[in-house]
Amino acid sequence: MSVRNAFYAQSGGVTAVINASACGVIETARQHPTQIGRLLAGRNGIIGALTEDLIDTSQEPEAAIAALRHTPSGAFGSCRYKLKGLAENRAEYTRLIDVFRAHDIGYFFYNGGGDSADTCLKVSQLSAELGYPVQAIHVPKTVDNDLPLTDTCPGFGSVAKYVAISIREAGFDVASMAKTSTKVFVMEVMGRHAGWIAAAGGLAHEKAADAPHLILFPERPLIEEDFLTRVEACVEAHGYCAIVVSEGIKNTAGKFVADAGTHDAFGHAQLGGVAPVIAQLIRDRLHYKYHWAVADYLQRAARHIASKTDVDQAYAVGKAAVEMAIAGKNARMATIIRTGEDPYRWETGEADLALVANVERKMPDDFITPDGYGITEACRRYLKPLIAGEDYPPYRDGLPQYVTLANVSVPKKLAAAFKIG
Amino acid sequence: MSVRNAFYAQSGGVTAVINASACGVIETARQHPTQIGRLLAGRNGIIGALTEDLIDTSQEPEAAIAALRHTPSGAFGSCRYKLKGLAENRAEYTRLIDVFRAHDIGYFFYNGGGDSADTCLKVSQLSAELGYPVQAIHVPKTVDNDLPLTDTCPGFGSVAKYVAISIREAGFDVASMAKTSTKVFVMEVMGRHAGWIAAAGGLAHEKAADAPHLILFPERPLIEEDFLTRVEACVEAHGYCAIVVSEGIKNTAGKFVADAGTHDAFGHAQLGGVAPVIAQLIRDRLHYKYHWAVADYLQRAARHIASKTDVDQAYAVGKAAVEMAIAGKNARMATIIRTGEDPYRWETGEADLALVANVERKMPDDFITPDGYGITEACRRYLKPLIAGEDYPPYRDGLPQYVTLANVSVPKKLAAAFKIG
Repeated sequence: MSVRNAFYAQSGGVTAVINASACGVIETARQHPTQIGRLLAGRNGIIGALTEDLIDTSQEPEAAIAALRHTPSGAFGSCRYKLKGLAENRAEYTRLIDVFRAHDIGYFFYNGGGDSADTCLKVSQLSAELGYPVQAIHVPKTVDNDLPLTDTCPGFGSVAKYVAISIREAGFDVASMAKTSTKVFVMEVMGRHAGWIAAAGGLAHEKAADAPHLILFPERPLIEEDFLTRVEACVEAHGYCAIVVSEGIKNTAGKFVADAGTHDAFGHAQLGGVAPVIAQLIRDRLHYKYHWAVADYLQRAARHIASKTDVDQAYAVGKAAVEMAIAGKNARMATIIRTGEDPYRWETGEADLALVANVERKMPDDFITPDGYGITEACRRYLKPLIAGEDYPPYRDGLPQYVTLANVSVPKKLAAAFKIG
Repeated sequence: MSVRNAFYAQSGGVTAVINASACGVIETARQHPTQIGRLLAGRNGIIGALTEDLIDTSQEPEAAIAALRHTPSGAFGSCRYKLKGLAENRAEYTRLIDVFRAHDIGYFFYNGGGDSADTCLKVSQLSAELGYPVQAIHVPKTVDNDLPLTDTCPGFGSVAKYVAISIREAGFDVASMAKTSTKVFVMEVMGRHAGWIAAAGGLAHEKAADAPHLILFPERPLIEEDFLTRVEACVEAHGYCAIVVSEGIKNTAGKFVADAGTHDAFGHAQLGGVAPVIAQLIRDRLHYKYHWAVADYLQRAARHIASKTDVDQAYAVGKAAVEMAIAGKNARMATIIRTGEDPYRWETGEADLALVANVERKMPDDFITPDGYGITEACRRYLKPLIAGEDYPPYRDGLPQYVTLANVSVPKKLAAAFKIG
């Protein structure tokens, strides 16, 4: 096997641990100098490959690469850009080959979710379709936890931990104020299509009195009367009610509750935020004093309270991807396999990328309680190990010390520029 | 000195560390059994005293009291209730004396902010005004950091740390997405009257490129054109713009921006949330893709990332309050005195409660940069030590283990009930 260079890029929404995967890829590649030469990263994901905007990671000192393990976000920049099919946009693929050939890239590591798996699959076919030899391996990442054939997706466990801790803490707060002040608290979390993240809030609910008391899932339509009855019963029983709501919940007509036609005085559609809509419903109908929070990016960037399991798995899939490439594999995704419960055990595995791309894993129906507002024991058993363990970053003067890489550009070798479609 | 019982209550909005003060009060009281008998806590603050709804803290095991140090919220319940003046509502004071006499209460420890200091001061005057011997000592607490005569207020340092960490993490996230996605991020923080909490976000800004790039303070009117020009310049310079906005900012007409007359389609006043208003302004005028977050209670309940300095100070003021009472003092507040910089040093002190009650400490004008969007070196010097150090709670299965006390009621001794005014 001759020494060839490798390309690595981050794709889609970033997470608290995607850089831990980058760390796994780069550190492992550095351990195999007889197979992998330099590892070049795409600046802003695949766009960096198309525009020949490459970063020479070999110029980063070991300590900086090691610090990626505890740094949230995408250190090389990410992007939301999906390659079209070969038939629709052949120019993109011939350009990729031009760039790969100019920089002798024989390995393609793509770190992303479902759309990115599709891009990675298309690159894996360049060899067969256009005769350019390249091995493409996908490194899974998504807070949405919706990739198939892997027990979980790196990035999800840390959001899950953040959400469970946050609703526990806010629940304690509201419990102590409820006598004369706030009685209802609504926390909005991510998950436009699936309730994985909202479900994670349920981990904080260990006894009947514990927050969250109600979870609103995108998998269940919001039936207002039923919901309000339950909020009222909860306030009667526990003195207050703490609610986790997924940004993607819909009403019985199938419309997003966050977009339910409300407008401000200037006629603008009301801006995002389903939490204030739920809070307003409760105010109008039950007249309770309420507070609401929208965690937004805070939840997926919260490296300060990342799950150790998640960090370890993020690193491991990066490492496994490089090892698979060195073993001559192509069109594969590194996966997490659950090999034991109580105690939880896991190892990395691999899946056929063709079976991953564009397949969305839904939350099993039996993970939601029959009443529609909580998680079942099966769900708890699945989620619990994913948030286990803390992996604190180093601090200086009270603030976490995250690394910003030098990100030195590789000199361009191609005369032609390329305009992104 | 004969042995008399003590009363302790939590008042106003709770914090991540008010229970650390409770821990300091209770553990110190237990060390002085020859002066202080039982320590009785008011269930839901002063309301517990008025309604004779008292909790016997002597029934809590040592481990439970020790766990208060790492548990957010108010373990005995808090309330928003301010005693009226003696002339206006003599019935409340005679009732307090009835309850105190029935339970032989000679010490009154009140844990709260400015309004609570006023209540504590009134109780301290019962002895002189109505002949009932009681010593009242105030234990400072408020995330608003607005009590005078103390270097800082326990509760503030932990919110400050949470806000600085959160905007740093979200800033890293947005920086990596900005090429093809979100370019502006707006994070709303507490502080209706003063910008202390918003200013703390500025600690994350160590270099020009660091988030937050702009802070909107309640001390400065929002001048839209100037603000938008700066947002645009920031996106041009750094590729994105991260903004911290205080919930209390006002427009040039002196109106709260969050209440600036916007209504939804049903004619309801728009619900809280200044972050979405700022985001919408940016969308309408600059057309950038944006995200926004409202941290709400998450920021003041975030014990998982409390400042060690804050936890230590919260405990210390509780301890000092008991020691002051034992020393025979009355109408005092325990304070924090800054005795050194570089390295930062502090000790507890005391202040005359008459000089504390109803006095609001403003943020110094020279803590805000001349342009109105950042913090000065003087501000940074003041804030920096307050967020220093981490004080992680214990975890089990990935979740922090916070204590819920048994809160056993003291049998009532009075025949008459009392209706809260």
